[in-house]
Amino acid sequence: MHKELTKSEITGILQSQNIGRLGCTDGKHPYVIPITYFFDGKQIYCQSEEGKKISIMRKNANVCMQIDIVNSMRSYKSILIYGKFEELKNEEAVQASTLLEENIFVIMTRSRIHKFEHQEKSEIDDQHRIKLITFRINITEMTGRSEQEVNEMETNNLVA
Amino acid sequence: MHKELTKSEITGILQSQNIGRLGCTDGKHPYVIPITYFFDGKQIYCQSEEGKKISIMRKNANVCMQIDIVNSMRSYKSILIYGKFEELKNEEAVQASTLLEENIFVIMTRSRIHKFEHQEKSEIDDQHRIKLITFRINITEMTGRSEQEVNEMETNNLVA
Repeated sequence: MHKELTKSEITGILQSQNIGRLGCTDGKHPYVIPITYFFDGKQIYCQSEEGKKISIMRKNANVCMQIDIVNSMRSYKSILIYGKFEELKNEEAVQASTLLEENIFVIMTRSRIHKFEHQEKSEIDDQHRIKLITFRINITEMTGRSEQEVNEMETNNLVA
Repeated sequence: MHKELTKSEITGILQSQNIGRLGCTDGKHPYVIPITYFFDGKQIYCQSEEGKKISIMRKNANVCMQIDIVNSMRSYKSILIYGKFEELKNEEAVQASTLLEENIFVIMTRSRIHKFEHQEKSEIDDQHRIKLITFRINITEMTGRSEQEVNEMETNNLVA
């Protein structure tokens, strides 16, 4: 049975999870990728390497983040957060980065270095670290729904 | 450590899973929802109630399906399938519907009826069942990547 989630249920899910699916669009095609995030109670913070999604979001800041808790195909909660991508710089980027570090166990990519560079050098040079873009999703709208399991007897009646 | 997945690894993931995140766009905003699917080795089949996403996909057939197997933030596989939405009718819709029924344990929504109608009637009338739209995603492109855990010693060296 469907149920629309309340704002408080939606923010509860946002706070309890740290992996979402970020959607963006170049105007013609949609693009979806899994990403770790941190929700500070107001906005969503993420980090990502330079790449297709960052390039798309710089051109069209309209993004969405889909997050779900799936127990089974009969029982799940799913929320969809709409917002605006905002790239963070300088002090704001450092603060957000610290938030992410403190709140997400390990963001492995932060210390990842280019494999081949590493193999060629005995010392790790900071310039070979992959640079991360830190960004915020300024939330404009939140929706959510749940599908709840009905008990077996009720199911049989409905299907009959 | 990143790795691009081969076509065979990507179709392996498509075949092993049955829940994906479907992305579509109205040209301005992206839209992402979780959905059950069946992959017949060539194309992807889904069913959905009439609603926002069906309406968007009828106007812009460019869609994507993101599917992942996440062990941890350090270890996951994620694929992104691009394709064209095609609504199925008549015999094709029946065939696809049968495929979905046979291959996905239970698609609960198939037998869901409008709650209030059900309460008012002692008998279930087929006209009160929620009609499902059956559609195919004709795959145009597939990409995939994995993030693999490096062992603890290697991690320490990299982070040092």
